[in-house]
Formats: sequence, structure tokens, C-alpha cells
Amino acid sequence: MSDTVVVGLDVGGTSTRATALTLAGDRLGTGRAGGGNPTSHGAERAAAELLTALREALTDLEPTRVAAGTIGLAGAGRLLADPAGRAAFDQAWHDAGLRCPYEVHGDALVAYASGTAAPDGTILIAGTGAITAQVTDLRLDRIADGHGWLLGDAGSGFWLGREAVRRLLADLDAGQAPGTLGTAVLTELVGSADVAPRPRDTVDATIQAVTRRPPIELARLAPLVVTAATDGEPVATALIAEAAAHLAGSVGRIRPGGATTPVVLGGGLLTADTPLAAAVRAEIARDWPDATLRTAGDGAAAAAWLAARGLPEVTDPAALHARLFPTP
Amino acid sequence: MSDTVVVGLDVGGTSTRATALTLAGDRLGTGRAGGGNPTSHGAERAAAELLTALREALTDLEPTRVAAGTIGLAGAGRLLADPAGRAAFDQAWHDAGLRCPYEVHGDALVAYASGTAAPDGTILIAGTGAITAQVTDLRLDRIADGHGWLLGDAGSGFWLGREAVRRLLADLDAGQAPGTLGTAVLTELVGSADVAPRPRDTVDATIQAVTRRPPIELARLAPLVVTAATDGEPVATALIAEAAAHLAGSVGRIRPGGATTPVVLGGGLLTADTPLAAAVRAEIARDWPDATLRTAGDGAAAAAWLAARGLPEVTDPAALHARLFPTP
Repeated sequence: MSDTVVVGLDVGGTSTRATALTLAGDRLGTGRAGGGNPTSHGAERAAAELLTALREALTDLEPTRVAAGTIGLAGAGRLLADPAGRAAFDQAWHDAGLRCPYEVHGDALVAYASGTAAPDGTILIAGTGAITAQVTDLRLDRIADGHGWLLGDAGSGFWLGREAVRRLLADLDAGQAPGTLGTAVLTELVGSADVAPRPRDTVDATIQAVTRRPPIELARLAPLVVTAATDGEPVATALIAEAAAHLAGSVGRIRPGGATTPVVLGGGLLTADTPLAAAVRAEIARDWPDATLRTAGDGAAAAAWLAARGLPEVTDPAALHARLFPTP
Repeated sequence: MSDTVVVGLDVGGTSTRATALTLAGDRLGTGRAGGGNPTSHGAERAAAELLTALREALTDLEPTRVAAGTIGLAGAGRLLADPAGRAAFDQAWHDAGLRCPYEVHGDALVAYASGTAAPDGTILIAGTGAITAQVTDLRLDRIADGHGWLLGDAGSGFWLGREAVRRLLADLDAGQAPGTLGTAVLTELVGSADVAPRPRDTVDATIQAVTRRPPIELARLAPLVVTAATDGEPVATALIAEAAAHLAGSVGRIRPGGATTPVVLGGGLLTADTPLAAAVRAEIARDWPDATLRTAGDGAAAAAWLAARGLPEVTDPAALHARLFPTP
């Protein structure tokens, strides 16, 4: 048993990470490669990044020792439904020297498993986008939001960035000087905080700066909102409260009232020590006072743990989880 | 003087209309061509549509009789700032046989002038997009919204369509059966009102149906909201109230409290007898009880009136306006 290894992969939009673990929870290797979301990058490119990360993680060990693997990625369902995408992933797996089977799970399940070993609970993710899901027996069950920037992702980084620009435009329309947040947004977008003699010219310049880029890049303004809210800026503070209400509202759409299962917070806006994370924690604690709140951790290790959990020799998956994700 | 003619053009996204008028207000000709918004169609195409509409309007008269002309179009400022676009319009004007000068104004000013001859007032337009402007001495002064679908157009047809889809997705996420509006939206988008055994499949199909088209096409769902609200459907009624509040909020950003000048309502959602028009009228009447509310009319005739107004022989432009736009 001590020779058995499991591998986990966390395939995200900006990076792909791989981890190889013993069943005792020792890390034998890690690997990292570029973004590999098959929905945005195509399955071929995603599979190539997967192979790079896998090879790096397996550098110092014999691939035949690997008994199981799990790949977590956004749009897992779409990949599984696409024979060509599935074949590209199979090929990468084989090219890495792996002969064991692997499972593919949604990134939301992997994020959940990085926060708790409990089979049932809730995962809430807010990064560029926002999604929440009920987990039942370590499978994604009901999902709320994750509808994308055009129709949803309420309370996400995209949402915060877009709302910050909207508040700025409303101030300019009303002939009011932008506040601290508006000034920061204006500087980031048009390179200067000066409002033109005709404020409509500044409105037009702001809109053009936004529409020159893909809409999703509004998410890069979210840190300005977080920073301003940390300093107590009123517009930013109001936006953070509104975002937290949206995120808790998504949870409320799928999580039963009175549930005592864990709630795991994931995504860059909720895993860091941000005012949004604090506001979401307060909303969840108010609506589900008996829920344990956890923060998502290393997704690749969580994927490896999900793989290990299916092996007969892993008799106490919760103990292995506790070793991989020690609570502080 | 009786020989003098003015022409007006209303260049919109879906059609271009031209009208030739005597200074007594008699229509000598009208013309119509395809959409000619230079921002969305390019100045060359816009100029070609302009020429077609002009030639049709001038069929039965000698072009040298035309003493002045006005072109109203969205994005007028951008056209005037673009020498090539300006040259294309000059060429079309010349090719139509016209030797007089012409002015270019924003479509919002032309819509305003189609509702009132008063030099000062407010125009509020809600169609696919939404914009409001203060008019001072028959020039556009301060503007609110018109920020486009990504950042604004709150209360517009796009906004109504997007919000209707968002409410549908929220119902599906929560495991609730869609109501009358949600059912209509679902049928329009995916061809059936049946929710899949896994509601997330219906969520995904709905999102895919929306994202397959340009975002602005969400506006084509607005009539479903209007129809449902007319029938008293609660979700649609709430959306209409929210849209009216957004539109009145835009007016409030630029129109002084206590103003008694006219407010002209324009755009397809406000010129028709819709629940949104009624709700907006109620909001405006509450916030500005002494304002006269008018509805926008024939834009090409209003453009011709703006042209006539600059001629020395037109000594009573208000009387000409009253002949062109008789109040019922």
C-alpha cells in the first residue's frame, strides 16, 4: 500500500496544477502549466497543458505506481459530452505514462472537497464569475448561478467591476465629482482622474475604454472595489454589501433552510481576507447559524483526495483529508 | 417664399426616413430606406441609405427649391468628428441634387422636437436602448445614460429582456416552475416550455440560446414582458415598475427639481400605449407635477422643422410646429 500513488489535477482558466500524493498524504510531486479550461481554450490546448503539469508532477516517480486520478475543471460536463475532447484528455493521460483510470469532476466539486471531507454541503465560489452548488455524497447536485457575465454571476468580480463603472457613469451624468472609488476606476480605465469640461466626453472615454476589451475584463476592476471597501469608501462598501447579498441569495436558492452541513467558500474574492468574504460569512452565519464555514484550499490536492477516496485501501478518507488540509 | 422647401432626415438603426416640407407645413414628399446608423453600419452604408431616402422624398420637386436640411442620427457627434464619414454624407447630399447646407443633430434632439416646439425641456427615449437628455435652446445639453447595453441602458428593451431571462434562470435554479412570463421567454428561446428532468439542462440550453446571438438581441424579448405586464403577470409587472424607476432615475440625474418645461417620451417602449409608458408617465407626473408630458412623433418631419426654424422667412416656428404636429 505504501507504494500506491494518486494524482489530482485542477484545471483552471489561468493555470493547470497537478499533485501526486501517497495514500499517507505525502506530496511526491507537483506540476504547473498554463490555463487549460477546455471551454475557453479548446480541448486540444487544455490536454496539452494537462500533460505538461502531469509530467512535472510525475518527474521523480514511476507512473505505474499511480492507481487513480481525478481531474477537476470548469465545464466538465461539456468535456465528457464531447468525444474529441475526451479523446484528447485520454491521450494526454496515456502520454504521461499513466495506465490507471481517471475521473473528471466540475471545478466546484473539487473546490468543495478542498474545504471539507463531509459528503454533503454547499460550495460558493466568487472569482471572475460566481456559482454555488449543493454537494450530495460528493457529487454536484443542484446549482445556482454560474450563468455567465451576460445573464448572471451576480456578486462576482465581473459584477463588482461593472457596477463600479456604472456608479462612476451615474456620478458623471449627474455632474457630481467621482468619489475615491470612481476616481480609481477612472484612472485605471482612461489613465487620468480628470473629468473633461464636458463630463459627457469623460463618459464616452470611459465607455470606449471598457468596450475596447472583452466584457469579462471588467473583473479586473474588482480589486479596486475591494481595496476601497477595506478603506471604508461608501460606494465600494455599498457594492460589497450588495454583492454579498447576491451571493447569499444564490445559496438560499438551493440550500435548505436550517441545513447544518458545511459551507465552503472558494474563488479569489472569498478565499482571501476581503470585506466581501467577511460580508458573505456574516450573511451565511445569519441565515444558517449552525453551518460550519470553511475556505477552499489546494484544488489539485483535493482532486487527488477524491481519487484516493475511491481506492479500497483508503479506509478512512476523512483522516487523509485532515492530513492534507490541516485546520489552523 | 411659397416655393421654399426644407428636408428632414431621421436616420435610425432599422430605417432611414426623409420628408420634404413647404414652409406652410405641407408634405411634398417622403422617402424611406434601410437602417443607416453610421456607428453600427458604417458611414458609407449610412450615406447610401440616406441618398435612397432623399431621392424618394424629392421625386416630385426641383431639388434647388430646398433651402435647408437637417439630419438626425444616433452618434451624430462621432460622425461629425470623422472626416471620411462627413465626406460620405456630403457626397450623398450633393448626389441628391441638393445645394443648400445641412445640419446634423443627435436623434435625441430630433425626437424631442417631434414632441414640442419649446426650446427647453427633457427628452426620454426607451427603445432597444435608453437615453435621456436636457434640451436647452433646442440643443442637447446634459445627457444621462445611453451608456449601451453592457454598462447601462437601464429600463430599456435590452434591460427588460435580460432581466426576464435572469428571473427565469433564478426560478429554474430554485426548482420552481416558471410563471407565465418565464414560460413565454423559455418558449421563445429554446422552442419549448418544458423543463428538463435536470433543470440545469434547461438553464444551460437557455444560456446557450442567448449567447449564440449578439447580446443586444435580448431586446427582442421585451415585447413578451410588455404583453405579460398588460395581462397583470406579477413578474412582468415588477420588471416594468423597476424599468420605469430606472428611466425616471435617469431623468432625475439631469432635470432640475421643480422644472416646468415639457418632457417628451420617445422610443418604441414609450410612444406606444404600453404599461411601461403609463408607469413612466406616473413617475414623471409625481416628481415634476407641473411638467407637460408629450409623445415623440414623426422624426423626419421634426428634422425638417428644425431646418425651417433657421430660415429668416420662418417668423413663427411654433405655429409651423403646431401645423406639423397637431395635438389630438
